[in-house]
Amino acid sequence: MMESMQRPAGFTFRPIGWVRSPYARRIDAPHQGPVTEGTETGAPAEAIIEIDASIPLKALEDLAGFERLWILFVFHQSKGFAPKVRPPRGRGKRGVLATRAPDRPNPIGLSAVELLRIEGRELAVRAVDILDGTPVLDIKPYVPYADAFPLSRAGWIDEVDALTGVGFAPGPKRPR
Amino acid sequence: MMESMQRPAGFTFRPIGWVRSPYARRIDAPHQGPVTEGTETGAPAEAIIEIDASIPLKALEDLAGFERLWILFVFHQSKGFAPKVRPPRGRGKRGVLATRAPDRPNPIGLSAVELLRIEGRELAVRAVDILDGTPVLDIKPYVPYADAFPLSRAGWIDEVDALTGVGFAPGPKRPR
Repeated sequence: MMESMQRPAGFTFRPIGWVRSPYARRIDAPHQGPVTEGTETGAPAEAIIEIDASIPLKALEDLAGFERLWILFVFHQSKGFAPKVRPPRGRGKRGVLATRAPDRPNPIGLSAVELLRIEGRELAVRAVDILDGTPVLDIKPYVPYADAFPLSRAGWIDEVDALTGVGFAPGPKRPR
Repeated sequence: MMESMQRPAGFTFRPIGWVRSPYARRIDAPHQGPVTEGTETGAPAEAIIEIDASIPLKALEDLAGFERLWILFVFHQSKGFAPKVRPPRGRGKRGVLATRAPDRPNPIGLSAVELLRIEGRELAVRAVDILDGTPVLDIKPYVPYADAFPLSRAGWIDEVDALTGVGFAPGPKRPR
């Protein structure tokens, strides 16, 4: 009883913004933002995050000095939860929580994007694996001492990369 | 009209798990997980993430090989949204979206934790800045090629650190 009172069954979040991106469909988007091999231009696509009018601009102050931001967003085209998924890297299925696939219990995405500029309520960012129309739940500064672990072992991903000699998932499709 | 149909006002997520941690209150917890200077033992605290019975264990497969995981969680003790906050590092207030403070429009936290072991539905992790009873929304593998940018500029945080000669926020309090 006590326990269930302390443990709400759900939490509701309102989007703080929306993405305008050249990627309209899942198949168009790179699998991770920084990876752009195989795009039409070879350059990462630029996208705009439009901050909702409900958020005071004061909340964005001090953000401009960061090179990268974390974007937490809703995989709004997710088809629902699948415990095992077939990632683009390697063969076979993996537990979905050991992947970055959209088919998660809660379809929340996480992506480190490069911040290009801020103009009023518009954040221009680069290297997005985020689809057009994506609802944004949170923006956080990328802070190397808390976030950067370049040598962190990466289980099945390291294994597949060692076998294939490739350090990233198969190339993304071109933007529309 | 069309637009509002395409833009839901809110998204509801159910916790996929819960944290058992030695940190009971905000004041007890380190400001970022990896930072443990000033803790009683100098060692990062261990915590357990207990995965909810609603999540099939298959979803956790392939996770054990990762050295670090991203935990997305609810700041369940957040006092609500404040556009400007006073972070522990430096003086003065900052726009909340340029900080990792809990007082965000959507109180979602993000922390890279070290994975120690998985036993059934229990994930033992280290270096948590996550409070006891915290609802967990998502777990993702930490993947260096997508997540690690050790030289990424960090705006006001770099500026404060350059002034003080210290590379992290003031020390955390001791676990209870």
